Amino acid sequence: MLPRQVIRWPAWIFQASPEWWRTACVLGTSVGQQRWPSFPWRLCSAPAFRGCHSTVPRVPGVMLTSERYPVQRLPFSMVSEEDLAAFERIIPGRVVTDPADLEVANVDWLRTVRGCSKVLLRPRTTEEVSCILRHCHQRNLAVNPQGGNTGLVGGSVPVFDEIILSTALMNQVISFHDVSGILLCQAGCVLEELNHYVQERGFIMPLDLGAKGSCHIGGNVATNAGGLRFLRYGSLRGTVLGLEVVLADGTVLDCLTSLRKDNTGYDLKQLFIGSEGTLGVITAVSILCPPRPKAVNVAFLGCPGFTEVLQVFSTCKGMLGEILSAFEFMDAECMQLVGQHLHLTRPVQESPFYILVETSGSSGDHDAEKLDGFLEKALDSGLVTDGTVGTDQRKVQVLWSLRERITEALSHDGYVFKYDISLPVERLYDLVIDLRTRLGPSAKHVVGYGHLGDGNLHLNVTAEAFSTALLAALEPYVYTWTAAHRGSVSAEHGLGFKKKDVLGYSKTPAAVQLMGQLKALLDPKGLLNPYKTLPACA
Amino acid sequence: MLPRQVIRWPAWIFQASPEWWRTACVLGTSVGQQRWPSFPWRLCSAPAFRGCHSTVPRVPGVMLTSERYPVQRLPFSMVSEEDLAAFERIIPGRVVTDPADLEVANVDWLRTVRGCSKVLLRPRTTEEVSCILRHCHQRNLAVNPQGGNTGLVGGSVPVFDEIILSTALMNQVISFHDVSGILLCQAGCVLEELNHYVQERGFIMPLDLGAKGSCHIGGNVATNAGGLRFLRYGSLRGTVLGLEVVLADGTVLDCLTSLRKDNTGYDLKQLFIGSEGTLGVITAVSILCPPRPKAVNVAFLGCPGFTEVLQVFSTCKGMLGEILSAFEFMDAECMQLVGQHLHLTRPVQESPFYILVETSGSSGDHDAEKLDGFLEKALDSGLVTDGTVGTDQRKVQVLWSLRERITEALSHDGYVFKYDISLPVERLYDLVIDLRTRLGPSAKHVVGYGHLGDGNLHLNVTAEAFSTALLAALEPYVYTWTAAHRGSVSAEHGLGFKKKDVLGYSKTPAAVQLMGQLKALLDPKGLLNPYKTLPACA
Repeated sequence: MLPRQVIRWPAWIFQASPEWWRTACVLGTSVGQQRWPSFPWRLCSAPAFRGCHSTVPRVPGVMLTSERYPVQRLPFSMVSEEDLAAFERIIPGRVVTDPADLEVANVDWLRTVRGCSKVLLRPRTTEEVSCILRHCHQRNLAVNPQGGNTGLVGGSVPVFDEIILSTALMNQVISFHDVSGILLCQAGCVLEELNHYVQERGFIMPLDLGAKGSCHIGGNVATNAGGLRFLRYGSLRGTVLGLEVVLADGTVLDCLTSLRKDNTGYDLKQLFIGSEGTLGVITAVSILCPPRPKAVNVAFLGCPGFTEVLQVFSTCKGMLGEILSAFEFMDAECMQLVGQHLHLTRPVQESPFYILVETSGSSGDHDAEKLDGFLEKALDSGLVTDGTVGTDQRKVQVLWSLRERITEALSHDGYVFKYDISLPVERLYDLVIDLRTRLGPSAKHVVGYGHLGDGNLHLNVTAEAFSTALLAALEPYVYTWTAAHRGSVSAEHGLGFKKKDVLGYSKTPAAVQLMGQLKALLDPKGLLNPYKTLPACA
Repeated sequence: MLPRQVIRWPAWIFQASPEWWRTACVLGTSVGQQRWPSFPWRLCSAPAFRGCHSTVPRVPGVMLTSERYPVQRLPFSMVSEEDLAAFERIIPGRVVTDPADLEVANVDWLRTVRGCSKVLLRPRTTEEVSCILRHCHQRNLAVNPQGGNTGLVGGSVPVFDEIILSTALMNQVISFHDVSGILLCQAGCVLEELNHYVQERGFIMPLDLGAKGSCHIGGNVATNAGGLRFLRYGSLRGTVLGLEVVLADGTVLDCLTSLRKDNTGYDLKQLFIGSEGTLGVITAVSILCPPRPKAVNVAFLGCPGFTEVLQVFSTCKGMLGEILSAFEFMDAECMQLVGQHLHLTRPVQESPFYILVETSGSSGDHDAEKLDGFLEKALDSGLVTDGTVGTDQRKVQVLWSLRERITEALSHDGYVFKYDISLPVERLYDLVIDLRTRLGPSAKHVVGYGHLGDGNLHLNVTAEAFSTALLAALEPYVYTWTAAHRGSVSAEHGLGFKKKDVLGYSKTPAAVQLMGQLKALLDPKGLLNPYKTLPACA
């Protein structure tokens, strides 16, 4: 999970040392965020290679993906002057070729992968997207659809010179219905702006995530974003009512209904939710917004063991029921790190585990009463040893910051190996315990925290510095362990470019094969977001 | 929607007159349920036809589908003695060929369509299903997967002599996790039994429907059942976490995870939810169960107009928020009919519209207080003119019966033309008004009721008797009107056999084409539930 308040380009990025970048290059998916002495900017040196334009300037410190990873460019056409002229006719004045302007769009948010596209297109309408894709299909040109470029697995930027198709100008609300709460909008609307829009009308968006200030709703849907409201409002697969999608050949697939119930044929929109732009380009979204809660409370609790954490969750679901909106946990080492590195004060007695419970409801008094009843039971039964409650916005934020700033604290602790895993809830913490034994003193800290309510573990291992031995002890062990417990090696971040090769740990060969067949059916030339989501063999 | 308490084979069925069946045959999708004088049983006379075994006895009063509808048998193989022997080796003692035993499985619940299968298979395991389908695939034998056979659109019975593959013996709970509420079970578990099972453990199934005493969870998922808990717990697309499916060639597709979050590749299980057994046979389901509510209240309200109904819905969502679990409406004519034919007493003043609001929550006192606050506001503002509240189980049932027994009352009023439509909520009642004007005195009653919270209208037109002129005034007008307002011609019942040809009213040609491509990809021989869901041209 991203922190709620995301700094678009964090300051530490610009202090990254050559050593840090070197190890990041080796690691790939295990990018660290630490020990960045103030070395000068480094321009990655790289040989010229097919498909990357030599005049595209290098973003300091970010190595080209094609240099970092063993990936070969597929035989797509190169963008020609004639292509640019054709695009200019389709979207006059919105064909971006200035190398400086392309820099940001070629590099991912984490600054770990970098493409070398030489053209970015900014359509405003579905028809323009359709014309662009039809042209690309005829010309065998690869396309990288891009929303807010906030993805964490390298799915939102080109790998080579794919044309970047940005939804940034497709940012219009089409309609909002203030009885049903159904919002219809273009794919490029920024999530936070949509949330403001519907909040003014008494609703909220059914999803919230740290990148909300930049991410686009089309990208959220394309990556099946989870986030902070998942426990309460569920998956986008239930709240997205309709989609408009342009297929690889330019065909507009209009599934943009605003109906809660529609059982006429196969639900085609589901194909595109979570397919990361590899099956079609989402151009418009119809989504169901829940009513805005009138009251929000947060309780922060100390807990004697993980068994008790699970029992508290069970009690909580029973007693808070419909008002429970978040159930997060963190272990003692997380709390130690936020205290040590960020000087945040522990609000309760020292405990092996801590829990953050959030309620959101339509009556402040009722919610507080329910929460009090739950806390009394939890304390009396010994499941919880200490607790504090925040009902005003300031204290709610202070308590949330203990959970949300763990990532930041970890980044101060050393080199960080990061994993985002789903597991059956009863096994959620076993991997952390297991790894502590396995790694011994070679790891500085092995910590576990995350969305317990969603079965989503953020597993982080810190060390004094990057170590290939430690990496070898972690991978593929973490993936194998997860697979053995029928977990997911990517709970909410998707596969993108960086994780596509670990798909097989969570999906059977038959499933991977069917995925490949779906890709071949919908995009037979493989033009849409190539090198992403599916392993090369699928 | 079905009534909550379904009589498995209603008594009136066995009193159906030849005239009634004749008109039902003509109507197809607009089957009436009225005026069944106690005529003796009628055996439909039909010529022998290819694919139907002459020794299969005729179920009284139910005409063979192949006689009623203009449908041609596709060139599948016929079941041979060698096939039966092969099946007997796979599932010893569970190959049903006795004609009397096949009667029930060949006829749909509404007794409007009838196949002439001569073999029904009762596997217990996924492996057995896999072996059966592999054999059928090799032999080019068509298969009709069947759950509880409670569908309303002829999707659950064979059209010709397809092999009936019953999930009735696949009725084992595999696991239930009492912290997360995740249930893993075989596809043939009966919904009501599952609900009892999880209720004992403090949870409820996320769906409930009238046919719960018979329907199978696999069938629910295959038809994407909606039902009574949809407003609160949402679609099966969000609550179903995993599926195990056997594909047409016998391949077992294991997507049976029990994870709330899993973003590794395309979400293949979504293909099978709502595909009515045409893309694969669901053999096991993993589903998220919500905690069991501690309190249920019902308010029954009189409302001066449909505009006010919408405003009450809006107010209701804002004030009841998280405890709102149903919002049903019915018009004055519905109330008149339940009074006239069933002698149910109107609990509030006579009004143009009536609303039933249900709350389900974790605190009876809090819920009652919220409901009182909402009612006070609704009455003070004039949106509601009268109301009554039921908090004990008996009164809750009495109030629900006014809504649930409308179907029964209609059946006493004359011949009934029935439509189940989704529309944008603000247009939900316009079609009823429009039809009253259009039909004039040729219709006895035009009534509208349904799940307003889900945008789901049950539109019913009664007449003294079936009339082709009235049918011509209704169809395709109702479908065209629905299409013009971007509605769905099948909100929750699916398409099955009887509605497959109206798919084009709710889906674009590009969408229908893609559906056909998906069918061809997953079932290239077209063996699974043929003649269903997709129009022949798709």
